[in-house]
Amino acid sequence: MSAATMKDNGAATTPRIALDAMGGDYAPGATVQGALEAVRTLDCHVLLVGDPQALEAELGKHNGIATRITIVPSEGMITEDDHPAQALRSKPRASILVANQLVKQGEADAVVSMGSTGATMASATMVLGTLPGLDRPCLGGPFLGLAPNTVVVDMGSNIDCRPSLMLGFGVMGSVFAHHYLKIEQPRVGLLSVGAEESKGNRQVREAFPLFKASSLNFVGNLEGMDFFTDKADVIVCDGFVGNVIMKFTEGLGTTLAGYLKNMLSDKLPPGELGSLADKMWEVNNLAKRMGGPLFGVQGAVVIGHGASGPESVAGAIDTARKCVEIRLVENMRAELEALETASPTS
Amino acid sequence: MSAATMKDNGAATTPRIALDAMGGDYAPGATVQGALEAVRTLDCHVLLVGDPQALEAELGKHNGIATRITIVPSEGMITEDDHPAQALRSKPRASILVANQLVKQGEADAVVSMGSTGATMASATMVLGTLPGLDRPCLGGPFLGLAPNTVVVDMGSNIDCRPSLMLGFGVMGSVFAHHYLKIEQPRVGLLSVGAEESKGNRQVREAFPLFKASSLNFVGNLEGMDFFTDKADVIVCDGFVGNVIMKFTEGLGTTLAGYLKNMLSDKLPPGELGSLADKMWEVNNLAKRMGGPLFGVQGAVVIGHGASGPESVAGAIDTARKCVEIRLVENMRAELEALETASPTS
Repeated sequence: MSAATMKDNGAATTPRIALDAMGGDYAPGATVQGALEAVRTLDCHVLLVGDPQALEAELGKHNGIATRITIVPSEGMITEDDHPAQALRSKPRASILVANQLVKQGEADAVVSMGSTGATMASATMVLGTLPGLDRPCLGGPFLGLAPNTVVVDMGSNIDCRPSLMLGFGVMGSVFAHHYLKIEQPRVGLLSVGAEESKGNRQVREAFPLFKASSLNFVGNLEGMDFFTDKADVIVCDGFVGNVIMKFTEGLGTTLAGYLKNMLSDKLPPGELGSLADKMWEVNNLAKRMGGPLFGVQGAVVIGHGASGPESVAGAIDTARKCVEIRLVENMRAELEALETASPTS
Repeated sequence: MSAATMKDNGAATTPRIALDAMGGDYAPGATVQGALEAVRTLDCHVLLVGDPQALEAELGKHNGIATRITIVPSEGMITEDDHPAQALRSKPRASILVANQLVKQGEADAVVSMGSTGATMASATMVLGTLPGLDRPCLGGPFLGLAPNTVVVDMGSNIDCRPSLMLGFGVMGSVFAHHYLKIEQPRVGLLSVGAEESKGNRQVREAFPLFKASSLNFVGNLEGMDFFTDKADVIVCDGFVGNVIMKFTEGLGTTLAGYLKNMLSDKLPPGELGSLADKMWEVNNLAKRMGGPLFGVQGAVVIGHGASGPESVAGAIDTARKCVEIRLVENMRAELEALETASPTS
């Protein structure tokens, strides 16, 4: 029984988040500290999944009693260097697998991981399964601080997507925009190189009629500047393009922050300069702060940035908590089932 | 005989630039004013191609004697709404065609146009022809003020490129980086979603071995942040991705400029605020300032942004002038001929 299903039958309780405490560049220090911050400030329980000794040592560094935090033991972890599928077989008690199993068994409501994106996706797909009609999940969500209500799918998890898979992404992005961002009838567009139906690569030109025939509020093709023009609430693209743009933005934000600091060094006091540079980084790195929800698996899963500090870990936990509260997975399942045009065979 | 060939046989003379004076959102006002600025500040002649009456009227608005400017009459123009190939047939004396013919006939050394990119490419391909081994030209050049020495090819002219075409783009980008930016052995990389050879979409994975086997200084796959990491001098991508990133950057620059203005309105005097916002726009819009050279046709052709004002028109003329001086086309032809791995049949 999935966590979302369980919520259906149970009372509205405090969301229980299974955190892969061993995943990420600064784990377990940053994950434990982020978990502590989350339970202090948010309505949630955190299940810290990882090596008990390491986690207890980290918890010991912080003052106060950690209520609403439970350690769940696991053995080993999957790193960026591992081949996800192989590692899932050779490390059956790895932290990310145990975290997903907690959701599968109804002992947690969502998974959060800062570890390998590939391993998180593979383990969620294997343990939780995909929603009906989809054979692959995708990463989505808002990613720009300058456009915090614009949802981008796919952010980099699926390359060379079939047009029918892109339609599925559009549906999930639309459900997310509706329930998470509270946008009525989200406008969905296809990222392309011109507004006309004839513009785009073959993938986009083949996807266009599928979107047009669907029940989505499809607004047609979008261009690169439309991340900023409020023409659409959901921007659908292949994961190759999504990944390139997300990493491009990340690099640009860092570079611009340094550029501004340099240019304004004799015009602003150091404190204001620092906070301006921080903001410049932040507006270009929203996904780092809140994590990216994994759309299409039968459970709420949020993937954080590998380089997350405690604040970003808490941000990803908050995103997961909200996904549980709005019953995102249940809503996505219902919408996918209603989508007549996307047959699993197409 | 192409302009570049002619230069070989002739003495080193002042470059003669054929400007499509009717092309662009603010033509012929901005084109004429840009031409006047160019001949005042740069070593060049400008052949203003367009409707003589309109051009004389514009010239009449400006003081001083316009030496080194000649009007060449044409009839009609091709707009963004026209289908390029059809329009070339139905308007044989259109300004962009006449401009290209001037180069073909040895009466000018380069073409500059702010008009329809499609029409400029189609007319250059038809009138001047492509370099040996290439069936399509591409748009390239530096496009980010924050990375002014990083060349991106293709910026949006070719969608769904064959891997062998991408190799040709890499060669032309490398020649441009070497001769225009004076970079010894330019480092060439393929834009992808991970550094490893196995990462990327099918197109990139198929192009990788071609690049590896070539005589290029190939540094492997790049990621989105590598526009800012100085890992490569030339970034090769499909025109779909190039177009999306370029337009994305354009939108981001404008949005950031407004954001900064807003955030610093009570911290900086209005004049400094304005110049900061201008700089923010500029670092994200280099290609608007200098135009994008068209690589792969038998003549120097520079395509400017449709919304160019006089300063950007002069910038594109300057780029064209430099392309002539460094004998860019001749150098590209030689390198393409030397490229053994890129056969026209692959």
